[in-house]
Amino acid sequence: MPNENDKNPAERRQFLRGAAFAAAGLAVGPALAQNDQPRRGAAESHQHTPAAAPARSDKPKIAMLVHPKLVLQDLVGPLTVFNLMQPEIHLVWKTRESVPTEVGIPIHPSTTFADCPADLDILCVPGGLEGTIACMDDSEVIDFLADRGARAKYVTSVCTGALLLGAAGLLKGYKATSHWYVRDQLALFGATPVSERVVHDRNRITGGGVTAGIDFGLTLASMIRSQADAERFQLVIEYAPQPPFNAGTPETAPKAIYERVAAGRAPLIDQARQKAEAIASRWRAG
Amino acid sequence: MPNENDKNPAERRQFLRGAAFAAAGLAVGPALAQNDQPRRGAAESHQHTPAAAPARSDKPKIAMLVHPKLVLQDLVGPLTVFNLMQPEIHLVWKTRESVPTEVGIPIHPSTTFADCPADLDILCVPGGLEGTIACMDDSEVIDFLADRGARAKYVTSVCTGALLLGAAGLLKGYKATSHWYVRDQLALFGATPVSERVVHDRNRITGGGVTAGIDFGLTLASMIRSQADAERFQLVIEYAPQPPFNAGTPETAPKAIYERVAAGRAPLIDQARQKAEAIASRWRAG
Repeated sequence: MPNENDKNPAERRQFLRGAAFAAAGLAVGPALAQNDQPRRGAAESHQHTPAAAPARSDKPKIAMLVHPKLVLQDLVGPLTVFNLMQPEIHLVWKTRESVPTEVGIPIHPSTTFADCPADLDILCVPGGLEGTIACMDDSEVIDFLADRGARAKYVTSVCTGALLLGAAGLLKGYKATSHWYVRDQLALFGATPVSERVVHDRNRITGGGVTAGIDFGLTLASMIRSQADAERFQLVIEYAPQPPFNAGTPETAPKAIYERVAAGRAPLIDQARQKAEAIASRWRAG
Repeated sequence: MPNENDKNPAERRQFLRGAAFAAAGLAVGPALAQNDQPRRGAAESHQHTPAAAPARSDKPKIAMLVHPKLVLQDLVGPLTVFNLMQPEIHLVWKTRESVPTEVGIPIHPSTTFADCPADLDILCVPGGLEGTIACMDDSEVIDFLADRGARAKYVTSVCTGALLLGAAGLLKGYKATSHWYVRDQLALFGATPVSERVVHDRNRITGGGVTAGIDFGLTLASMIRSQADAERFQLVIEYAPQPPFNAGTPETAPKAIYERVAAGRAPLIDQARQKAEAIASRWRAG
């Protein structure tokens, strides 16, 4: 692990201003990119022109999709970890108008699809069942994901966000996971569903439902940075979980609890399946 | 567990509109209270007048403090669980102007201190070291917490939020926990610091650092509702954590990792201690 005292004075000042505060989840300058002007060249990059090799700096470029009815925890879990990497984070959507989340807190996109950097280190799609269903056949969203996903260093999702990677054709031939509600539906998009907390297949990293975003974020941080950095982040966010009950998966939950939640979700789960089948059918026809 | 089919038609519609969607973290009507008008009687209740016995409905009244430099995960972890209880949630601060969080996403308070209901089911203080230090000797914040905390059914915190409960005199004679950064400092406020993920002493429920807010939220949900409801929420948010490393506490983290984080945080930890000592000294003098 590099010793911070070995840095030159300018680097050390930067460390004190940045990483040290970030290490406590107290970034002085928030990582959230502010794009008040259209980014030059964004229009071209949005049109599937061949991209030059990405110029990578030490500051990972991350785009996270924010969509109406997003589950806020799906976004905030990984964002909390990503933020400790001192990244450039773009919360991307069609426009910069705020989108509602399931807990009622609105999120303001920082960057439109058109203004999002062409070459990303991480493309990340958080979930929220109702919100992702609405996006599955929204060509503006799907075209954006297909474009950036074709070049991103890591193509990732948390929870039902995997449905959108799937609909964008980004999971064909890959192992992947999602919220247990819809995990099996990933097969309709040519993926191999895997019942694990975080699934890593080449550059596709997918997390399970909602709270899996924290495990996912730490896994990705260890790949982008190092295990030592990920361990440091884990200590900062005191991630030593002790769930008070053992009901976090369909396999461990009491049967009556599982059946009640599954029955309550059945209409939305079916709606997702119908959309996934329609998309797969168009692929076969097309 | 009640069978939803036993409900009368009106109740059943309410269930379908409310709890069923909420069970998926997809509340149709977000629980966040909208207070566009000053609440009648709020001025009095803010002035420490004796309160009548709270009129409790089935909809728990929850106030969560939002303060500048809040760690967003500290808020969103418990909020995600609370939201599944179909509560009335107030994000409270001095004014309704947005406050920045450590990840750069601003949060808009829904309710001012003056307009916050006098009698709460849950008073909850999230953390963020820098933000809580700034509030420790802010009489407007501390008076609000002391007032609502004197009557709330549950007086709670996540992470360094416990410093504010302590500064408000609400932890005297109670066992409590906090982020490992400052847990020992709770003794200065007359509390007994306990190194556990979630500490429950009578009606004080305190959680450890950042991610402990999820364990905390589920624990509190089981107390407010039932174990069955908390297990249902756990399944909805798929809380079956699998941290990729074992570095979540000072005891389990590699020594070099621990030393680096502790050294980076030392100035802020010392600042918190100085404020806590000054407050304790004023108590002894006064």
